[in-house]
Order: sequence, then structure tokens, then C-alpha cells
Amino acid sequence: MEFDTVIHGGQIATADFLFDGDIGICDGRIAAVAERLSGGTRRIDAGGRIVMPGGIEAHAHIAQESATGLMTADDYYSGSVSAAFGGNSSFIPFAAQHRGQSIEHVIETYDARAQRSVLDFSYHLIVSDPTEEVLAEQLPRAFKRGITSFKVFTTYDALVLPDAAMLDILTVARAHGAITMVHAENDGMVKWMNKQLAQRGLSAPKYHPVSRPEIAEEEAINRMIALAKLADAPLFIVHVSTAGGAEIVRREKAAGVKLFAETCPQYLALTRDDLDRDGMEGAKYICSPPLRDHATQEALWAHARSGTFESVSSDHAPYRFDDTGKFANGAHAAYPRIANGMPGIAARLPYLFSEGVAKGRITLEQFVALSSTNAAKTFGCTTKGRIAPGMDADIAIWNPETRKTLRASDQHDNMDYSPFEGMEMTGAPEIVMNRGDCIVEHGVLKATEGRGRFIRRAPADLRARPGYAAKEFDPAQNFGAVLR
Amino acid sequence: MEFDTVIHGGQIATADFLFDGDIGICDGRIAAVAERLSGGTRRIDAGGRIVMPGGIEAHAHIAQESATGLMTADDYYSGSVSAAFGGNSSFIPFAAQHRGQSIEHVIETYDARAQRSVLDFSYHLIVSDPTEEVLAEQLPRAFKRGITSFKVFTTYDALVLPDAAMLDILTVARAHGAITMVHAENDGMVKWMNKQLAQRGLSAPKYHPVSRPEIAEEEAINRMIALAKLADAPLFIVHVSTAGGAEIVRREKAAGVKLFAETCPQYLALTRDDLDRDGMEGAKYICSPPLRDHATQEALWAHARSGTFESVSSDHAPYRFDDTGKFANGAHAAYPRIANGMPGIAARLPYLFSEGVAKGRITLEQFVALSSTNAAKTFGCTTKGRIAPGMDADIAIWNPETRKTLRASDQHDNMDYSPFEGMEMTGAPEIVMNRGDCIVEHGVLKATEGRGRFIRRAPADLRARPGYAAKEFDPAQNFGAVLR
Amino acid sequence: MEFDTVIHGGQIATADFLFDGDIGICDGRIAAVAERLSGGTRRIDAGGRIVMPGGIEAHAHIAQESATGLMTADDYYSGSVSAAFGGNSSFIPFAAQHRGQSIEHVIETYDARAQRSVLDFSYHLIVSDPTEEVLAEQLPRAFKRGITSFKVFTTYDALVLPDAAMLDILTVARAHGAITMVHAENDGMVKWMNKQLAQRGLSAPKYHPVSRPEIAEEEAINRMIALAKLADAPLFIVHVSTAGGAEIVRREKAAGVKLFAETCPQYLALTRDDLDRDGMEGAKYICSPPLRDHATQEALWAHARSGTFESVSSDHAPYRFDDTGKFANGAHAAYPRIANGMPGIAARLPYLFSEGVAKGRITLEQFVALSSTNAAKTFGCTTKGRIAPGMDADIAIWNPETRKTLRASDQHDNMDYSPFEGMEMTGAPEIVMNRGDCIVEHGVLKATEGRGRFIRRAPADLRARPGYAAKEFDPAQNFGAVLR
Amino acid sequence: MEFDTVIHGGQIATADFLFDGDIGICDGRIAAVAERLSGGTRRIDAGGRIVMPGGIEAHAHIAQESATGLMTADDYYSGSVSAAFGGNSSFIPFAAQHRGQSIEHVIETYDARAQRSVLDFSYHLIVSDPTEEVLAEQLPRAFKRGITSFKVFTTYDALVLPDAAMLDILTVARAHGAITMVHAENDGMVKWMNKQLAQRGLSAPKYHPVSRPEIAEEEAINRMIALAKLADAPLFIVHVSTAGGAEIVRREKAAGVKLFAETCPQYLALTRDDLDRDGMEGAKYICSPPLRDHATQEALWAHARSGTFESVSSDHAPYRFDDTGKFANGAHAAYPRIANGMPGIAARLPYLFSEGVAKGRITLEQFVALSSTNAAKTFGCTTKGRIAPGMDADIAIWNPETRKTLRASDQHDNMDYSPFEGMEMTGAPEIVMNRGDCIVEHGVLKATEGRGRFIRRAPADLRARPGYAAKEFDPAQNFGAVLR
Repeated sequence: MEFDTVIHGGQIATADFLFDGDIGICDGRIAAVAERLSGGTRRIDAGGRIVMPGGIEAHAHIAQESATGLMTADDYYSGSVSAAFGGNSSFIPFAAQHRGQSIEHVIETYDARAQRSVLDFSYHLIVSDPTEEVLAEQLPRAFKRGITSFKVFTTYDALVLPDAAMLDILTVARAHGAITMVHAENDGMVKWMNKQLAQRGLSAPKYHPVSRPEIAEEEAINRMIALAKLADAPLFIVHVSTAGGAEIVRREKAAGVKLFAETCPQYLALTRDDLDRDGMEGAKYICSPPLRDHATQEALWAHARSGTFESVSSDHAPYRFDDTGKFANGAHAAYPRIANGMPGIAARLPYLFSEGVAKGRITLEQFVALSSTNAAKTFGCTTKGRIAPGMDADIAIWNPETRKTLRASDQHDNMDYSPFEGMEMTGAPEIVMNRGDCIVEHGVLKATEGRGRFIRRAPADLRARPGYAAKEFDPAQNFGAVLR
Repeated sequence: MEFDTVIHGGQIATADFLFDGDIGICDGRIAAVAERLSGGTRRIDAGGRIVMPGGIEAHAHIAQESATGLMTADDYYSGSVSAAFGGNSSFIPFAAQHRGQSIEHVIETYDARAQRSVLDFSYHLIVSDPTEEVLAEQLPRAFKRGITSFKVFTTYDALVLPDAAMLDILTVARAHGAITMVHAENDGMVKWMNKQLAQRGLSAPKYHPVSRPEIAEEEAINRMIALAKLADAPLFIVHVSTAGGAEIVRREKAAGVKLFAETCPQYLALTRDDLDRDGMEGAKYICSPPLRDHATQEALWAHARSGTFESVSSDHAPYRFDDTGKFANGAHAAYPRIANGMPGIAARLPYLFSEGVAKGRITLEQFVALSSTNAAKTFGCTTKGRIAPGMDADIAIWNPETRKTLRASDQHDNMDYSPFEGMEMTGAPEIVMNRGDCIVEHGVLKATEGRGRFIRRAPADLRARPGYAAKEFDPAQNFGAVLR
Repeated sequence: MEFDTVIHGGQIATADFLFDGDIGICDGRIAAVAERLSGGTRRIDAGGRIVMPGGIEAHAHIAQESATGLMTADDYYSGSVSAAFGGNSSFIPFAAQHRGQSIEHVIETYDARAQRSVLDFSYHLIVSDPTEEVLAEQLPRAFKRGITSFKVFTTYDALVLPDAAMLDILTVARAHGAITMVHAENDGMVKWMNKQLAQRGLSAPKYHPVSRPEIAEEEAINRMIALAKLADAPLFIVHVSTAGGAEIVRREKAAGVKLFAETCPQYLALTRDDLDRDGMEGAKYICSPPLRDHATQEALWAHARSGTFESVSSDHAPYRFDDTGKFANGAHAAYPRIANGMPGIAARLPYLFSEGVAKGRITLEQFVALSSTNAAKTFGCTTKGRIAPGMDADIAIWNPETRKTLRASDQHDNMDYSPFEGMEMTGAPEIVMNRGDCIVEHGVLKATEGRGRFIRRAPADLRARPGYAAKEFDPAQNFGAVLR
Repeated sequence: MEFDTVIHGGQIATADFLFDGDIGICDGRIAAVAERLSGGTRRIDAGGRIVMPGGIEAHAHIAQESATGLMTADDYYSGSVSAAFGGNSSFIPFAAQHRGQSIEHVIETYDARAQRSVLDFSYHLIVSDPTEEVLAEQLPRAFKRGITSFKVFTTYDALVLPDAAMLDILTVARAHGAITMVHAENDGMVKWMNKQLAQRGLSAPKYHPVSRPEIAEEEAINRMIALAKLADAPLFIVHVSTAGGAEIVRREKAAGVKLFAETCPQYLALTRDDLDRDGMEGAKYICSPPLRDHATQEALWAHARSGTFESVSSDHAPYRFDDTGKFANGAHAAYPRIANGMPGIAARLPYLFSEGVAKGRITLEQFVALSSTNAAKTFGCTTKGRIAPGMDADIAIWNPETRKTLRASDQHDNMDYSPFEGMEMTGAPEIVMNRGDCIVEHGVLKATEGRGRFIRRAPADLRARPGYAAKEFDPAQNFGAVLR
């Protein structure tokens, strides 16, 4: 066997276990994993390094414009480059439908934007306008094209969908083996709290978490799970930020509901105290759901460890700390007018390794699962996220000893700040590959714009649940026996 | 001391314990409770009888018209007479606001209708249109008048309120010490299930429970409790029909939420199989939330026993089995067009005594609590529901040995059927008093139309919860410490 | 009606509700409760006062000697006098069987000792030697004599019983309608922790709580409940000191197990920090189970409020802070050799009123239930603990406004310290009656030694549970259907 | 690279995911896993087959004699041969200490017996006599020899240990990174139930489950977990047979306790009704804990699916249905005298594949995890249970299409019956390898007696729990902060 590349002498880390060995790569795929491999057009010495599947960033806002026209600072070039520097081999940003748009139009728009990506990519659709035609024809066509997941919202005026629409959309997903992701916060609670705060003239950034209380997330998670149970459809809860919400997910998973969930580094690393920093600094930490407290951090780590979360994703939502981003609405002082979101696509794996693995909170295998393998399984990337023959050679070679202070100025995105500024990080990726190409090598970008390819995805792997193959909703399913 | 009436020789039953003794009545009030009382203008021999506070029916639809103009079969005369024959000394029907109506108009309307009552009465308002004026002025005025409770709905087009409106209304109640009751079913789920059934042409009465699944109640109960927690306001869940819903109530009560709940005899006695009776018989059993199954009955009894429920109420909603009632919409075959509700104001106490006390499921003290005392406490009837000096002489003298088969034809309401038809009942009231007057005596009505008086009610007794005195909402209450 | 005594103008407090009224007493019993009563050989003005059932102290060690001969400082005279000054009208100390003794001998011994009591009394037996004869003959005879409860221990060498003996004893209790009380701490854990501490030379009083960890109580409570479930017998968990233990009780009660529980003022008022006081002061706070922490206090208050506990009892275990008591074993420095227990029979009601009612943690009704009524019900004192005609005139007249600092020197027991020393108390009993006699009146003892009478008790009131009438164990009860 | 053997064209199944590829074996180890491998001294065509890590049987009684001298029917030859035919590449039977024996003696005894094994093997010790010397010296020496797990019992006279001894032993295990396994049933309950049944003359096999009720297992599991929490030591609950027990394991795992558990095929496949078969047939189904009911089966499958159980083990306890085995005590009719246990070492994988994978209850990956990989991780078999370079070539090649009826006469153990007699099995192993040698090939034994080697094991992999590295017990660990 002749290999294009051989990665030699590293510790290979999978989501299941660790072993020492070499990896031989041919035509962009992993051709062999062996105790020792000779040859290789290129040989990479991975001695003392961890060799793992490259990260899969499954929650990022890239070249995405809001309903009011605010565009993220990162496009598919800067976003993918930053992701690669952060140890990722592929990513799945959102392709957002604005009301009135067809899904086809949305996909075309993002296909054009994604031409610049240096990494393989797919999209999660954002569905904000589930018309009859969208449900009956456009979504099924998108699923067939390999876009097998989409996100819905329980809040935000331009995005919120009522419960009955959620049932329609869950049912369509169920019938086609697609997966519904949800941003879960109770819209009425949020609006009402905003009104209460406005009546009292409280508008500093620090009031943002007050406006979106924990119970708003817990309620919406509980409700969305109830809807998914009625529709008998799988559901993915994005960016869980509360201990209460995570506990509901755990309870319902244990009860057999087909449920997936993620949290994000910001909820593990930061607290609402960060929103009370001097001046307008707090604006940097405005995201939704908002940052919580230290007890929440501990609880979320415990849930990451015990399997409540499939993934830890970045929710990279890059709005610069200027009037192109955070302050595009002009009103610097009022939290409701400040753009929501924070960057973090490059910090996700380093943070999770440093605070998770190096500090003994999670195992190295769990790091692989949370950063890569589970996302591949959940979102149907059948050739990604595993170190095994036949898989795409999407690999990160990780130095567990590197120590570095995170600086926004060292990041490769288009942002002017990082919420993780100043954190000491142990461990970093040295080489990041996508389909056998080195994208990043010892801090240098080696890839050309546009080399990334669209990932045609399968449905989520639901084999563990009998009866979870794609199927139509049947209202008699729960009552048939009773009602004959 | 000279008494108008002395009830002699009975076993006096309170919500707390039992004892043998005599009761002396003066001027409509209980003047003395003693081992032995001589005298009495009238002496009633209660030997072998239970002497208990007369029932308080806290959930009944009397002389109430729907938004589309359908009027209940019972008015305040027939309704109060039937209630009295069933062992009740007072009742609290609903006074329903239709959208566009002022609360004052609603109260005036029902004040006029209630002139016919033979029993003391109050109203729970139904609030369907919480305008600024309703919230800021009309409701507070009603509370001051002694109408300290009201009901809201999470479902039905003419009544449903969004979550933010619930928060407004809970906050107003909180500020004035009033109590919010809620009919909790998820409207989106119900509408969506109706659509699913309609698409498949399934419209027989037996599909009514399918259209309103258990999870719709459980979700809405959970959501309403979340809203109440955010507003820091007490909440009363009416007609809990599911084990899951009751379990949520139990869990949240244990966690310290100020929560009240009731179930109804129909959920203890009947199942959804009753909706599958021959021909249109099933229409008699259409109510919402719908009837469930046998396992639910056992669970609800256990919750009644263990304190999850304060009360067992009738939800008397009298629509005759003809085209003035159930079939007023003309379409006999389609469950969505059949009027919702069933009668039961006279059957509540007999059913609860017979199936509860006589069969050993609850104690006699619990019977008193569930049928009378707790309603008095929850709804602020400070002179009702207890056997003690100073209380109104609202008393039922109960023969625990009577055996009788329930027949609609023996009832005193305006209905032409009873869902409890044919049930063998052990125990029945022989004499029912309201303010010292015998209303019913050995099966004979002794009261004149219109003798009932309005009950000016206090707020619910919330002393058990520190900080539950009436107060304004403060958004910083949960976050103040964090945000300084 | 002519009354010996009329208590006039007070607020009468029952476990269920409050009302204003007069109480007429004849021949030691409550003859009448009325709005207004004239006459009375003696008239007591209770204006501005609370009139409630006198406390029933259901957990006290009086004239009790340990297996090694250590006698409590209080006998039936000093103990009953102190109890009366603390608002109690009766009490139920323990009559302890030492191994080898017959139950008859034990009862005779305590009958002799109890001759000095100024209050009515009964005993809970302590059973440490359940021989065949004890089980088959002696206990049943004691039950018939009206001693219908007894305590067993899962720890202490002289008292501990193995699980199989617990099942024997629970079964005998079940067959006769008696109730088993248990001191629940895992003996193996306690012994092992003592060994660990001894090996490390840690013997200061502050290590006492380390030697009896929370989990030892939680485990033993769980195990005893499992045994009670297998035997299908009721169980009373004494002096619950942990949040975890209380939570198990709550969970199992909700699941329908016939379970009773109490906590004590020391677990609500003190923490293990008190064991770390200077010098040997910590020895005053050695009791078992030991004091815990502030979070536990809050949790136990919440359980008291929500019904997990029937009673708050004193566990009065009076050992003086000298070598007749705490240091009778001579070794001042080593916690394992210091006598266990603390006094509190006079502080129980004042503490519970002051910290509970006056501070809004519990209602006045709950105070009555926790200090008196529930104990009467649980332990079958059928004529005690309620304000109603026919009941013994066991009454405390309480001034809710009194403010006083608790001093050991003001107590009437034989003790030389109080663990509650220095606490500010709001509210105090002014008059305490037992069977119509004023025992204590405005701080003056009015009763003569030996006037107290034995209370012949009925079984606990188990009517709320179908099938809980006394019956024999049947091993096929759970499996009969399966195994035919 | 030249390979001794190449397995070509199969679907490779790991505990994490599936892929197509070839496996190259050199010197008994997996040298390479690749898309395609040429060469191989021997090439095995695995087209249409599943290639998985060979099973690891972690619960089997082989050449083990009871305290009373009853020897199992299988020795290390017949036992290992039967295991191999059932798809296992290695096994870990028990080496049982009888009281008075040194651990060294026990190991020597079993070393001699194990010389006949055709498969690699290790032992779990059974510790019944934890003297000071056993704890301080003998066990640590055994751990150092690579025997890093042992079992203790809460029941059986010859084996039962009191709680304090459990703490000693857990603490020693903790200090050396070893793992404690426990047979958890409450001994007192079992003895007491036996007495109850004996008093009533109930001794047929069908009474065996009555004598060991569900609650006996649940209680003992809860207690053992409490002891493990106090000692801060990991714990493995063997043969969980109840839904309640499994639920406790799930709850405590979620709370962060380092807990492992298994169930067995018999609890998934059979019920206590099997003990009521005609004549003495029921004796075949006597095992402890006993068989339960259908609801339990469903619950245990759900727990297997959701991760409560690491493994499904056979608990192979071979006693023939004659007077050398089941009836060695001579008394055919009395369940207490019939030998406990049933065979199943060859049926475990076929059953789990057929009823689990083929019927959609678990995934193929879960089958691999439950039958092999997790046992390797839990019990420190660092070179077993995974398909990866460097691992021992312990491989089963599985035909998923084979259909066969299980017959005791087709098994290769020394037994004369199988509890799974007559079951239709889908899927079977065709080739089973241990260290690259084919042990079984298409139904033919290819291995010679005694080729198996001792597996020197590491401690369980506890990296996921910070602080779970081996360490000494510190009594101040939970209280240090409080007590300074």
C-alpha cells in the first residue's frame, strides 16, 4: 500500500478509547490504521501528540444576515479559516430563511456564500416561514439534497413559531428522517421581562440576563420536548444554558425520548457578572440565552461528563464591538438594541481541552466525542468524525503540552474581541487536515479559498430507538388500542 | 343561651377530626358546639348521622352563556336547588367576561342572574380580555368587592390568552392578594390534533379524547406553573385530569410553589371508553379536558388522598342531550361541534362519600376537606366550611347508611341525563342548611327562590408562605443580588 | 350549663383553622365551645391571647437509665414540671427494656417512676430484646394495656437490632395496630467512622458529627422503610436530622407508604459549628443523630411546612454538664465517651412559635399540629390534642407578644445548661391546663406532684389507608397473583 | 507489512461505530485495520459478516466449589470451550475464598484449575474473610499481580459481610485502584421470608422468588451505594434483576457516583412463571436473585439501551439437573435445598444479538459494548475488547443471518439442560479468535487445552472522575471545611 501521507507515532484518540498507532492516508481518506506504517509521500511525526478526528463545528453563524439586514462579521472564508485554526476540519453553519423566502432561494444564497470555504461544510436550515409549500415540498427536497437538519425558534419576532407550527414541522422532519433543532426560550416571558425592565428604566447590559430568566429556557425546553413527544419526532436542544434545562433533557432521555442537546463554552466559562463590566464592555457578553452563574457552570460540566450533552458547540455569532456589529442599532446604552452573540469558533476545542481534559473534568475520549464524533453521528456526516479506514482524513494533531494565553489579536476571524481574552490555554492543534490536506500547519494557513466541499448528509443515526425510522404521523398511535 | 336550632346527638366531622356533640345555632350562625345542648326552638335529632360543613361547590357553570350565545341549562335557581339536594350550602359559579365587555358589566349581569339563588353564592370571574383598563382598574375594583378569584384559559379561541398576558394578569392578582385559576391545555396541540383527525375523517365522540391528549394538559400545567413562578404569584389548576399533571403539581408544591389544584368526580368515575358508547351516547361524556383511563383514576385517587388536590369539584356544565345543548350546533356526528361539559353538581358529594369514604379510599375528614373546608380557605370564604362558633350555620346532616341508585330523573337540575346514571351510592345528605335555614329536608325543598346572599370573599389564606402577602412584582427579586 | 371554668375572649387555634370564641370546661373536659359563654366558677380572660391544645411532648427521656446505668437528670416530677412550663399538657417518655428484662418488668418500673408526674403521661416502649416471648405475648399485652407504640434502634451496641428482628417486630406491631418508631442510623458506618477517627487521634467534640455522617441516617431511613414495606407495617422515623432523610420520607409518603416522621428544634436551631465551641463547651451539643448545617436547617423547615413531619419533638435527653451527666465516663476530651443528648422539653413550643410562627415560616395552625394535634393522632391519644367538646381540657393559653431571652437558669428542669441559651423568644404560654386543672399560671406552678394520670392509648389512626387495620402478615400478599 | 492472518471484507463493529474494512493480524495482535489489505498467510473472507471484538465473559462460576463442597459442572476446559462456542475470546471467572483461606492459597488453587483453559482468563476474587492480614497485605498483593477486582456478598451465610467490613474492603480497593463487585440482596429479608414460607409449609420451586423479593435487592443496592459513597470508592453491582434496583443505579450514576452495573440474559428472557413449570422442572430456573416478571424485562432492556448497565453477563453457574448438581442436597421438593444458578455462558452473545440487535432493542454498537468492550474497560483488560492496532486479536466473526434453535444438546459445556432451550436465535459466531488463533471455526473446536493465558489486568479506567485515582480514605474529606 502506498500512502500519500502517514501520520506516525501519535496517540490516536477516538470517542471510545485511545491507542498508539500510525495512520495512512490515500486520496483524502484514511486508508489504514496500524501499529506501524512505512512509506508515505509525506510522513508526519506525531510523537508526543494526540491524533484525533478534526473538530466538527455544528453551531455557527457565518455570512448570515438577520431579518433586519445585520450581517455577521465572518464570511465562509474567515469563518472557515478561524475554525481550522481552532482544530476543526469541517463545519455546519446556518442557512437562514427569512419570511417570504423559499428554501430553494435560501440554499442558493448560502451555496454562493459558501464557495469561499476552506473547510468542508453543510448547513442547518433556519425555518421561519413554514408555509404549506415549504412543509410539503421545499423541506423534503432539501432533505433529499443532504441537508437533513434545521433549526426553529420559540422566540424573536422574526423567527418565533407557534406550537401548532412546531408540530407541523416536527412531523415533516419525522416523516423524512430529518432532525429539528430548537432555540428554546419562552417568548412571552422574555417580552414581559423586557417590558418590566423598560418601565423601570433598566437598560444596561447587565440587565440582559434578567430579561431572559432561567425559567424561560426551562419552560421552553419542556414544552418543545412535549411537542416532540406528541409528534413522536427527534429533537435537538441547542445551547442549553441552565442546570434546570439540562436536568429536563437528562430526565426525558432516560425516559426514552429521542433527544439531543449541546451546550457552549461560554456557558461553562463565563457568568452574568461579565455583563457588569465597566463601561460598555458588558455588551461583549450579550448572547441569548444569556450567561448564568458559577453553580450553573458546575452543573453543565457534570452534564457534559455524564452524557446529557452530545456536543459542546461554539454558537459563533460574530458581531464586532463597533457600529458594524454590537452597536449597529446605534443605541450604545440599551441592552435590547445591542446585537446578540459572541465569537468563539476558534476557541471551542482549545477551551474544552484545557478546562476539560487538562483539568480532569472530562476524559480525552469525551473531548473527541463532544467536539467531533457525536456531531458527525447526530447530523449524519457519515464519513467524518471518526478515525477509521474509509473515513475522510479529517484529522487534528494536537499538542497537549502547549501553553498559550488566548488573545483576540491572535485569532483569524474578522472579530475585534474575544470573550475568552486572556485565558490560559493548555493544549493546541498543530496540524489540522480536511480530506488529507493540511489546512493549518504550525500556525500557518496552507489551504486555498474555496477548496471546501459540501457535505451531503444522511439523517441522524436513530437505530438505537426501535421505530425511529422515518415515518408518517398517525394520530391513533397512542390511542389506537383504547379506541379501536 | 337560647338557640334557634340545636342539632343533637350527631358525629361532628371536620377536616381535622371527628367528635360527638351538639351544635347550637342562633341568627344563622353556629353559636355553640358542645357535648350536650338543651333547648333550641327547633331540635334536630342527628343520632347515627354525620354533621359536617355543607359542601361548597367551587367549580360550576350556571346561567353562563358562551361567546357564541349557548346558555347553560341551569340558572341560579335550578343550579342552586340541585346543589342543595347534593349536600352543598353555597357555591361559586363563574361570571364570564366576553371580549369587549367590562368587568363591571359582567358582574352586573351575573348579579342580576344570581338573584334567583336559594344558596349563598359568589363568582369566580373568567377573564378573556385583559386590557390595560381591566388590569389596572376593573379587576382591582372587583377584588375589593370581594370577588377575589378568576379563571383564565390556555385554550379555546374565545378565551385563550398568550403567556405574556398571563404574566400581566398573574402580577395584578399577586399585587391584590387575588388568586388565578387556570384551565390548562396546550392550545396548539389541541388544534393540531383536531386537524390531524379532520384530515382523516375521524369525528365520532370517541375521538374527542384523542384530540386533547394527556400531554396537552401536562405541558400547559407545567407552563402555567413556570409563569406563576416568574410572577411569584399563587395559582390554582382546575380540573386536573391526568396522572402526569397531578405529579407536576405535587412536585412543585413540594418545592414550595404556592399552588392549588382540584380534580372532578368524572375523572375518578369514568373513562374514555364511555365516549365509545353506542350511537351518540358518547356525546354525553364529552368534556374538556377529556376523560382518561383506569390507571389515571387510581392515580388521581392517590393524589386526592395525599394532598395534591385541595378540592374535588363538579365542573357542572349542564348542556342537555338535545339541540338546546349538546347538539345546538346541529351536527350530531362530529365531536368538535358538540357542546363540551357534563352535569354533576348534585352528584359530587354523594359520589365522593360513596366511592371515597365508604370504600376506604379517603377518610371522612378528607371528605370534609375536599368537599368544603379547603374551598372555603382557598377562596376566602371566611365564614363558611368549618363547624365552629361564629361560622355561618352551613351544615349538611349526612346519613352514611342510605343506599340509592343515582337516576337523572331524581335530580333537581334542568338536565335530561346524568353521566353517573345507575351508580349505586352509599350515603346521602338528609338535611342541608345555609345560614341556619333548612334548604333541603329529607328530599323536600324548603327554601324560597332568591334567599341566597352574595359572599364577600377575602383573599386566599396564604399565611403559610412567608412573603405571600399581596405585593408588587419586582424584576430584580431573583437577580438583585447578582446584579447589585 | 354550668361550667367549672370558662376561657373567654381568646383566639382559638386548632390544627385546621382559627376562630374567636369561649371555651367552657366541666369535670376536666371541654364541655362547650361557643361564641360567648356566660358563667363559669372561674372565668379566665384570654383577650389578646391564643387558646390552643396544650402541647404533647412525644419524644423525651425521663427517669430513664442507660444499659450502663447512667440515669437522666430529670425524673417524672422535674420533667413534667419543665414540660408544663413549656406549654405541654401531657407527655410520652420512653420506657426502656434492657436486654434480659421482660416488658412487664419495664412497665412496672416506669409505672413506679411516673407516679410523680404532674402531667398526664404514657410511654413508648423501647424494645431491645425481642425474644419469642416478648413478641408473642409481652408486647401484645402491652398494646392491650394502651401502650401502642415502641421504639427500636439500628445503632448502639445495647440496643441495635438486625434487619430480620426488625421484620419480626414490625409484623407483631402490624398484627395489633401498634406503631414502630425507629432511631435510624447505620451502625456499621458509625462504628467504622469512629474507628477511622480513633486511628487518627481525632476525639474532640467537633468530630462527633463526622463520626455519624448524614449518609448513615439516610441509609438507615431508607432501609427501615424497605423493611416496613415488606412487612406492610406503619413506621415512625424519629428525630430526622438530614435533608436527604426527610426527602426519602417525603418520596415514600407520596408513594403511599404509611409513614410518620418528626424532627427536633435542635436540628432547626443549631449546627455542627456549635460543637466546635471553646474548651469542652462543644460537649453540650453532642446528640445523635448529630447537628448538621445551615442548609439542612432550611430544608427541615421546608419539610415541616409541607407536611413531611407530623411533629417537632424535643428529644429531651437531660445529662448535666458535669460528671453526673455528660462526663460520667470520666474522659472529658473524647467525644465517644461523652453522654449523648441535650435538654429542651421546655423550649420546644416557645422555639417553634418564635422562629416558626412569629417569623412566618409556619402558620399558627401548623404550630398546633406540629406541637400537639398530630402527636395525639399518631400515638392514639384520642382525648388529647384537639379543642372540641368531649376532649380533655388540655389547653395552653399563649401570649404571642411576650419577648424573653431564654436562660437555663429560668428553666424548671434539673439541668445546668440549655443549648438554646440566649435565644430571643417571641411568645410564651401564660396558663397551661391538664384536664381542666391549671398546672402553670403566669410562671407559677399550681399542680401537685403525682396528679398526672396514665393515658390509655388507641392505635395510630390509620383509617386513611385502606387495609391498614390490624392484620397478620401474609407472604403471598405481593406474589399471590403471580404464583397462584 | 506481512500478516499472519487477514480478515477481509467484513463489516467491522466497535462499541462506537461501524465501518467496512480488513484486519491484519501479526503475532496474535491486530497490526492493521485498513480499507483493503493484501497478503496474509491465511485470508479469511468475512463478506456479509460482522467482525467484532470477541466477547469477554465477566461473570462465570467455573471449577468453583461452594463452602459446602459442591463443585460446578464446568471446569476451565469445558467452561472455556463453551464460552468460545458462544463467541467469547476470554473470560473472568471467580476465585472464591472460603473463610480461613488466604488469598494466596485461593489464587494458587485457581491457577492450577485454570491451566486447562483454551481461552485467556483472569479471576475476580470472592472475598468472604476480610481479616486484617487479608486487607492489609493479601489483597494488595493480588491487585499488584493484576487481579484488580473482587466480589463481596450481602447474603448467604458462608459469604455475607457486615456493613463495617464492606467499608474496610471498599477502602482497601479504593487505595489500590481496585474495583469492588457486590451481590446485593438484603440477608435479613431473605432469611425472614424463608422463615415465613417454612412456617406455612411452602417449599415448591415457585416460592423461591417469593423468598427473595424485589425490595431485598433494591434495599441492598441502595445500601451498598451508600457505603461506597462514604468510602468514596467505585462499586460494581452484579446481576441487577429489578427495575427498582436499576433505577437506583441510574439515579446515582447521574448524581456522579462511580458506579458500574450489569444484568444477565436470564432476567431479560425468563420470568418467575418459569419456576412454576410441571414437576421439578422449576428447579432449573432457581437462581439468585430470582427471575421476576415481564414488566421487569422491559425495564431492564430500557436500562441496557440507555447506559445504566455496562455489561450483560451470563452468571453461568452450572449445576446439572441431577444429584451431582441441583439436587446434591438430596431434597428434591424444597427450594431452599436446591442448588442456585443456571448455565448460559454460550447463550449470552447469541441471545443478546438475537433479541437485542435483530429485534431492534439495541444497536450493533451497543451489543459490542455490552458483550465485550465495556467489560474490558471496567475490569482493566487493556489489550482486549477493542478492534484497533496493538490490541490482542480477540475477534468474533459473526453471521447475522444464521437461524438456529438453541438446544442444550448442542452446547459444549458439561450441562444437561439449558434455560434457553428451544429459543430461536438469529445470528451466530462462525469464527472465534483469541490472540490470533482460531479457537472455534464453523462449529469445530480448533484449540488445544491449556493454551489460554492469564490476563494481567489494570485498575478500572476511572479517568472520567476527577480524584478517582487510587488514594487513601480521609475521614475529613467531607467535613474538613466545616470542622477546620
